[in-house]
Amino acid sequence: MFGINGNFLKFGSSYLFASVNAKAKEYAKVNPDKKIISLGIGDVTLPIAPAIVDAMVNASKEMGQAETFRGYGPYQGYDFLLKAIAENDYRSRGVDISEDEIFVSDGAKSDCSNILDLFSIDNKIAVQDPVYPVYVDSNVIDGRAGRQRPDGSYNKTIYMPCVEENNFLPKFPERQPDIIYLNFPNNPTGAMADYNTLKTWVDYALSIDAIILYDGAYEAFISEDKPKSIFEIPGAKKCAIEFRSFSKTAGFTGIRCAYTVIPNELRASGTQLNKLWYRRQATKFNGVSYVVQRAAEAVYSEQGKKQVKDNINYYMENAAIIKKGLEGIGLKAFGGVNAPYIWVKTPNDFGSWEFFDYLMRKTQIVVTPGEGFGPAGRGYIRLTAFNTRENTLEAVERFKRIK
Amino acid sequence: MFGINGNFLKFGSSYLFASVNAKAKEYAKVNPDKKIISLGIGDVTLPIAPAIVDAMVNASKEMGQAETFRGYGPYQGYDFLLKAIAENDYRSRGVDISEDEIFVSDGAKSDCSNILDLFSIDNKIAVQDPVYPVYVDSNVIDGRAGRQRPDGSYNKTIYMPCVEENNFLPKFPERQPDIIYLNFPNNPTGAMADYNTLKTWVDYALSIDAIILYDGAYEAFISEDKPKSIFEIPGAKKCAIEFRSFSKTAGFTGIRCAYTVIPNELRASGTQLNKLWYRRQATKFNGVSYVVQRAAEAVYSEQGKKQVKDNINYYMENAAIIKKGLEGIGLKAFGGVNAPYIWVKTPNDFGSWEFFDYLMRKTQIVVTPGEGFGPAGRGYIRLTAFNTRENTLEAVERFKRIK
Repeated sequence: MFGINGNFLKFGSSYLFASVNAKAKEYAKVNPDKKIISLGIGDVTLPIAPAIVDAMVNASKEMGQAETFRGYGPYQGYDFLLKAIAENDYRSRGVDISEDEIFVSDGAKSDCSNILDLFSIDNKIAVQDPVYPVYVDSNVIDGRAGRQRPDGSYNKTIYMPCVEENNFLPKFPERQPDIIYLNFPNNPTGAMADYNTLKTWVDYALSIDAIILYDGAYEAFISEDKPKSIFEIPGAKKCAIEFRSFSKTAGFTGIRCAYTVIPNELRASGTQLNKLWYRRQATKFNGVSYVVQRAAEAVYSEQGKKQVKDNINYYMENAAIIKKGLEGIGLKAFGGVNAPYIWVKTPNDFGSWEFFDYLMRKTQIVVTPGEGFGPAGRGYIRLTAFNTRENTLEAVERFKRIK
Repeated sequence: MFGINGNFLKFGSSYLFASVNAKAKEYAKVNPDKKIISLGIGDVTLPIAPAIVDAMVNASKEMGQAETFRGYGPYQGYDFLLKAIAENDYRSRGVDISEDEIFVSDGAKSDCSNILDLFSIDNKIAVQDPVYPVYVDSNVIDGRAGRQRPDGSYNKTIYMPCVEENNFLPKFPERQPDIIYLNFPNNPTGAMADYNTLKTWVDYALSIDAIILYDGAYEAFISEDKPKSIFEIPGAKKCAIEFRSFSKTAGFTGIRCAYTVIPNELRASGTQLNKLWYRRQATKFNGVSYVVQRAAEAVYSEQGKKQVKDNINYYMENAAIIKKGLEGIGLKAFGGVNAPYIWVKTPNDFGSWEFFDYLMRKTQIVVTPGEGFGPAGRGYIRLTAFNTRENTLEAVERFKRIK
């Protein structure tokens, strides 16, 4: 008799963004005359840049001609894309990453969860709290997270609180972890670690033989002089894997492309993790659409770089408008400088969901309740800069109603 | 200290197709004047049909306009594609599959390996032998396959020999399995099961509470009156998951799109597997590129259907040419009628790899050695119909040299 993976039964019944959507839909149904503005889900809103669209159109046409048709591609990605990534995202910043250390995929969500195939089930994981729910949820499926407690946390997972008192930067945990998830610029707090902070983490990981899973999906939003890659830190190639994505950088949430960097130096008990991941991908994955890889390549073209940068600037202006607007009415707002997220303390000791409901009723703005990202997110909400300028300005106006 | 998943160390050192490629490259290097014809790797060669290219071009342009831009799509796939699949691949054949039972993905290889996330590590797997290596390899990673024996097989895996004596159709195994992989039309033997054969398997699975993972990736090549889907068999919705792909049907090996059907009726200990897979996909996957989903939709358009059918016919004519040619020189050739693969018994008790080397030297034709697909593949080679007519005809001519 076949049996299911019992770990699935450890999930709580509701999923954060599903609950947010359900509540927003319910409100819209009862109040059909009200215009809802969503600053909740972190999805991009600007269309794909012209240079990228041109690349997709050309690649599509190539696929229709016998001379230029392409079937199965290389498991790690096409050379043209690997070269563009290595050159633009690493070598140009003095970081020596070679093409065979890069693996192109359909998304950072896939990569940062599938990567767990490489690790022992007994490894202890540590996550920032609040955190992108996928890190914990993918470990629930494998059994590393443990059992869910009444507050939604899991008993075998090491939570590293990121709160106002520590500038939303985690401290080394009391229990020693094996796998450490670090996400900078951070979703949801918007916090960004500087060079020295990241160096202490690399040194810590090396000292305890832990591995850092570094999620740099929001790297393009860094406006201050901070590391763009964990591999800018000496020693990181011996203890870290980095995830990057075109989703937020170039609006690829509907195009689907990302990549993962596993340095050749990274080993465990003599085994190269790069080789394990190659074997995993060759077994369970067949590469990314040629059309999509040409789209990603175009992100690095002269035109592409400029157009993509313009879009990032647009979102970051939205972020500044939101942050300034909220501070103007006396709310405490964090992030928004190196990330498209603004992390807001709820006023008057409102709970996250309470404040969510209050905002919906009073302003028709949808946000994401902070506790959906972990216990330390209680008493916060997350706003995103991914909207039109018009909606962003109107949202700020509406926020004044809560004064 | 972090540890790796030790199951990776259970893999043999070489991967079938990598070894085939390495040998072909080596030969080409030493013999630069010889023209090699590859009938080895099962990759398509005809370009993408015009109706599908048009759909991709249009979708790419849509992504560049604010009014038609799309970000994250639904986890299961867009309604337009789910409807096209349900209507054309199921309802039109009298099989009642609803849209919420279909999950669109980037490939059947991803699906048939990722699906294992849903099952207990203790489940015993049974595979046809010879078989598509991914079924076993993905179970090696999870630990279900067991340890590798000297002949390349794994000790906890139940192999069901498919040989000339049983018309390449497996018998019920002696040891009782929990998860049964069935692949029809079969890769590599080209065998196709009829209605009654599939019915015995569904009845068997129901009687022992096993689940059938049915890989129908080559369904489009069925030319005889055989079931196109396992769900044409009564009771299959209670014991089977089906994998389908656009890779071979419409030449999507470089475009990347497939789908998996998990009926709502399919349960284990009261839990709906459809809901588990939704949770798995929502956690570890972010859907397929919008452009690719529009391409897949176009496969079902009036023009698309005709163009795709023409390509299938072209490949199947190649298959017939190869089969007839080989039989003409006294070789035993199977398959090629409902599948793009021809399974050939090596003459004179040649081993698979011996015959591979002999063919390379004598004819410069690259094939796939049968034992790469499992112990029962020893003494066979696999040829594919995926080539130009010209190369196919030349290959048949060259085969005459081995008389």
